Amino acid sequence: MTLPNRPRYATRLNAFKRGKEGIAGMIAHAGEVGGLSAADLNFPDHFEAHSAAELSDLLAAQGMALNGLAMRYYTEAGFKLGAFTHPDRAVRRAAIDVTKRGMDALAAMGGTVMTLWMGQDGFDYSFQADYARMWDDTLEAMAEVCDHNPALDVSVEYKPNEPRAHALMPDMATTLLALRDLGRKNAGVTLDFAHVLYAGEMPAKAAMLAARYSRILGVHLNDGYGKRDDGLMAGTVHPVQTVELFVALERIGYDGVIYFDTFPDHGGLDPVQEARENIRLTERLRAIASGLVHHVGLAEAMARQDAAASTRIIAGALYGA
Amino acid sequence: MTLPNRPRYATRLNAFKRGKEGIAGMIAHAGEVGGLSAADLNFPDHFEAHSAAELSDLLAAQGMALNGLAMRYYTEAGFKLGAFTHPDRAVRRAAIDVTKRGMDALAAMGGTVMTLWMGQDGFDYSFQADYARMWDDTLEAMAEVCDHNPALDVSVEYKPNEPRAHALMPDMATTLLALRDLGRKNAGVTLDFAHVLYAGEMPAKAAMLAARYSRILGVHLNDGYGKRDDGLMAGTVHPVQTVELFVALERIGYDGVIYFDTFPDHGGLDPVQEARENIRLTERLRAIASGLVHHVGLAEAMARQDAAASTRIIAGALYGA
Amino acid sequence: MTLPNRPRYATRLNAFKRGKEGIAGMIAHAGEVGGLSAADLNFPDHFEAHSAAELSDLLAAQGMALNGLAMRYYTEAGFKLGAFTHPDRAVRRAAIDVTKRGMDALAAMGGTVMTLWMGQDGFDYSFQADYARMWDDTLEAMAEVCDHNPALDVSVEYKPNEPRAHALMPDMATTLLALRDLGRKNAGVTLDFAHVLYAGEMPAKAAMLAARYSRILGVHLNDGYGKRDDGLMAGTVHPVQTVELFVALERIGYDGVIYFDTFPDHGGLDPVQEARENIRLTERLRAIASGLVHHVGLAEAMARQDAAASTRIIAGALYGA
Amino acid sequence: MTLPNRPRYATRLNAFKRGKEGIAGMIAHAGEVGGLSAADLNFPDHFEAHSAAELSDLLAAQGMALNGLAMRYYTEAGFKLGAFTHPDRAVRRAAIDVTKRGMDALAAMGGTVMTLWMGQDGFDYSFQADYARMWDDTLEAMAEVCDHNPALDVSVEYKPNEPRAHALMPDMATTLLALRDLGRKNAGVTLDFAHVLYAGEMPAKAAMLAARYSRILGVHLNDGYGKRDDGLMAGTVHPVQTVELFVALERIGYDGVIYFDTFPDHGGLDPVQEARENIRLTERLRAIASGLVHHVGLAEAMARQDAAASTRIIAGALYGA
Repeated sequence: MTLPNRPRYATRLNAFKRGKEGIAGMIAHAGEVGGLSAADLNFPDHFEAHSAAELSDLLAAQGMALNGLAMRYYTEAGFKLGAFTHPDRAVRRAAIDVTKRGMDALAAMGGTVMTLWMGQDGFDYSFQADYARMWDDTLEAMAEVCDHNPALDVSVEYKPNEPRAHALMPDMATTLLALRDLGRKNAGVTLDFAHVLYAGEMPAKAAMLAARYSRILGVHLNDGYGKRDDGLMAGTVHPVQTVELFVALERIGYDGVIYFDTFPDHGGLDPVQEARENIRLTERLRAIASGLVHHVGLAEAMARQDAAASTRIIAGALYGA
Repeated sequence: MTLPNRPRYATRLNAFKRGKEGIAGMIAHAGEVGGLSAADLNFPDHFEAHSAAELSDLLAAQGMALNGLAMRYYTEAGFKLGAFTHPDRAVRRAAIDVTKRGMDALAAMGGTVMTLWMGQDGFDYSFQADYARMWDDTLEAMAEVCDHNPALDVSVEYKPNEPRAHALMPDMATTLLALRDLGRKNAGVTLDFAHVLYAGEMPAKAAMLAARYSRILGVHLNDGYGKRDDGLMAGTVHPVQTVELFVALERIGYDGVIYFDTFPDHGGLDPVQEARENIRLTERLRAIASGLVHHVGLAEAMARQDAAASTRIIAGALYGA
Repeated sequence: MTLPNRPRYATRLNAFKRGKEGIAGMIAHAGEVGGLSAADLNFPDHFEAHSAAELSDLLAAQGMALNGLAMRYYTEAGFKLGAFTHPDRAVRRAAIDVTKRGMDALAAMGGTVMTLWMGQDGFDYSFQADYARMWDDTLEAMAEVCDHNPALDVSVEYKPNEPRAHALMPDMATTLLALRDLGRKNAGVTLDFAHVLYAGEMPAKAAMLAARYSRILGVHLNDGYGKRDDGLMAGTVHPVQTVELFVALERIGYDGVIYFDTFPDHGGLDPVQEARENIRLTERLRAIASGLVHHVGLAEAMARQDAAASTRIIAGALYGA
Repeated sequence: MTLPNRPRYATRLNAFKRGKEGIAGMIAHAGEVGGLSAADLNFPDHFEAHSAAELSDLLAAQGMALNGLAMRYYTEAGFKLGAFTHPDRAVRRAAIDVTKRGMDALAAMGGTVMTLWMGQDGFDYSFQADYARMWDDTLEAMAEVCDHNPALDVSVEYKPNEPRAHALMPDMATTLLALRDLGRKNAGVTLDFAHVLYAGEMPAKAAMLAARYSRILGVHLNDGYGKRDDGLMAGTVHPVQTVELFVALERIGYDGVIYFDTFPDHGGLDPVQEARENIRLTERLRAIASGLVHHVGLAEAMARQDAAASTRIIAGALYGA
């Protein structure tokens, strides 16, 4: 079957790291998977040993287009207590500046999306942080980042916690509140399936809110048990919620990259084989989803909230039940 | 010590129900507590046997002012599949109409806040509901309700789940997104401590967001273990988070009622004795909070996110440590 | 295909209650489902209007065998603070005595399993209960109950919480610790899928522990999101975990009843239609499981913990991926 | 006040690591805290640059006694897929052997407790692992380890997950089931407060089970929000549960070390200052606990499960309420 506006696949490059290998090796191993036609690079760490031009060549050699960059505000770089929310103005400035440099690199490479995961921007204790100041500082920093290059998209990837016990941007709705207040057209949100699950959200509902109040600029696929960022292969625990998300994305018209944010390293899996299973299962579940997008009986069952009838249709499509 | 703008206390009247007693008996028992100077009534069930005028007299006889009404969309009344989100337009209309009648009763009694807990407005399964339609229907219904009497406040009390497996309004930020879209000045949010906890939120941070993007129209105090709506006595599990919330409320200038939404019935406690412990512990924790609102050392520790220093101050204030 | 030792199906009769209908009506409606060949009755409430003999006749008329009885220690009967753990010796005695009467009724009807869900036996607060005394009292009560009729099986259905905030028997391993200490051959455990999930357990692993240290005397099938007792249709959220459980049960040789402990009432579903979907989806997932029990490639993948390889096999079996 | 059988304090040495400093530096910094009279070392990593004798001298120079060793089965050493449960017999052998060498080092240094945190011994996916084989292999390995030197205690520190999505030993009761089956007198359990919380357990109840069916050989104090291993300062989130645990430990007669297993690094705290707050707050909460151990009114309230009365006593003791 043909899938119009078919998203391309990318995957977490660090999963392919062997020993002390650098980014060149990771890209080469990702190329072995077959079926990965896009990649995201981390900034600044993936740019330590290679220029933007060299990285473009390395990707091209594997038939991969650069999807975007993802900022990493590492502890070692002084961001342990926060990046955009760090109590020290100088550190906040450094976080903004490194993000701008990342955007310059992104533009130089012809990429389109800068993903911000502000993992250190949170708090561990009551009475540790001034929440209002953190919120203001984040909005101010994001405005400066967005305005640095309005031709590029800037996407917030929320996550409930880790490394901080509470993140400032823990879930979809909090992120959307911030984005609405920010008011920048080039800002949007990245939906990470496992983050969505352990934020207590239903993925397709989170997608609906995102499409209504902002734009979905990235989709990170994986799975988990809804308690932490398990990073399991896509579709392995919540196939029905995955299919429902695909239906929602197809309705919304999302045609960006599907990025597998999984941790084969945790479970001791071979990353090439694991990436292939991600693709295989995703292709199957997406094909099932495509068959449901215009399913009249399903639409009718949902219009009357008849979960018995819709379950019959879904179980038929998935398991032949 | 004197607490300026001191909120009054109310408590869940149904906790006082003995046998098949009606609302008159519950109010009388609540009067035995001492210290409860306000009450919320449920609509329509608390109005079954008495007129609004009679209810006002019953409250006055116990020295209680009416704080507000809380809508109940009961299963028996046909709202099992939803009130404002019910798939059947006629049932949605009935939900809106009963809410308007509740607002009329509220106005007649001189109350100020109508609390909406839209517990049936959610879903249990993927592919059960059309999330976008539910969202639209809720906004449309709320607009009609708010516009019915702009002199009254309308407050949304969110809750992650129960009875539905997922609520449409599960957390503070989702509620605030809806309220911003709604754009009614008489709309706001009720913060229920146990709901906040099991939504994975930090109470004082939720209060910050509410004050920034809407108004806090009600505070339901209780406690729990962060997994469900335990309804335990206020301050019994999370005293530090309770104190931090009080500090936030005092800074925001919240001077509404503190309503104890606890379930003495679950633990087999005497509701009068339980209500007294709610008041006693709350008064103590609020006094501690008042001493922290302008604490210079605490503000300095928080300005540098120094949780060791702030913990020393908090532990000193709470435990004399 | 033929399924040797094929378990029969039963379902929660209270789901079929319409209005103020009694147990006779519920049984009749359950008969409409088709495919339900067994039933469990609650004691004492299902015995209020009918004798044991009459109930046997009502079941027989629908082609249903009695699987067993399930004790209900209702709040109204004085068990709010506990049944076997109630602080008052007289109430503990009443709980034991009503359980014995239930066993007598069970024996009279030719049933085999008495299920104990000790939902009130828990605590809400720290410093509310003497855990050691509760544990002793429970073991003592269970011993008396088991010894009342060693020809009947007595099964503990654990659940993490609700109505109490913490249950004394919240998970499989705690239950097995108690059962080992109890040392009665006619005691065992009932595995409820949704309880297992929100106890944080993996169902097939819980089954392994149960088979190793006790006996599985009942399986309650349903599904949920791992946070509370959602009571969704079997297989609708965790199909892979459901299939893995079926494989484990087939290996263990469990040939008891599969009881659907679901709440169609919560989601407003028609209970007859919902029960049919429970059976249809369960039959399909069990057939898939049967094909995996002796799958050599799967066994090899699991022997080396190769989740990529096993996922390929499972996804192929489930989705044709 | 004097505390009989007063436990000594130890803390996580890795929290004191600055830059690339080794164990000698960490011990020196721990010495700056004051009040730390014991230490645990990790095996084998803390023994890389120093002999057992040298480490003893380093500890002695800071006035610290060695409490025990804690095994670390690192990914780099080949234990990614498991230590005692690794699918490869040779790796399981290596795990057992390195543990025995750790016990030899422990004996040489005069320590008494070997703590086993079997973090890699778990699984991520359904159909990834043969649970029964993992269980058998673990019991077999533990038997060999315990029998290697019956004069030393071997303690299992359970944890629900991380790095694996599910641990084989996730909670107290599962650990106790294994320990009972193991049947070794020198085996026991370590209770880590944050692990207990996110296993869904009540700490004092877990202690009761441990004392009844095994021995508590270690107590790791910290705090968290019950969702993951937050590693917050002791008593900062759950002071009441911490006090209840102290009461339980005093009743049980636990006189071992209190080890602060906290992560000051996560929140960017100074580890010396953070350790001092751990000690200060713990001393205060333990003093409060000691005053409650023989409190007649509290015992009477608990005997009738009267949480309102016990809350009044506890709030009075903690907050002067």
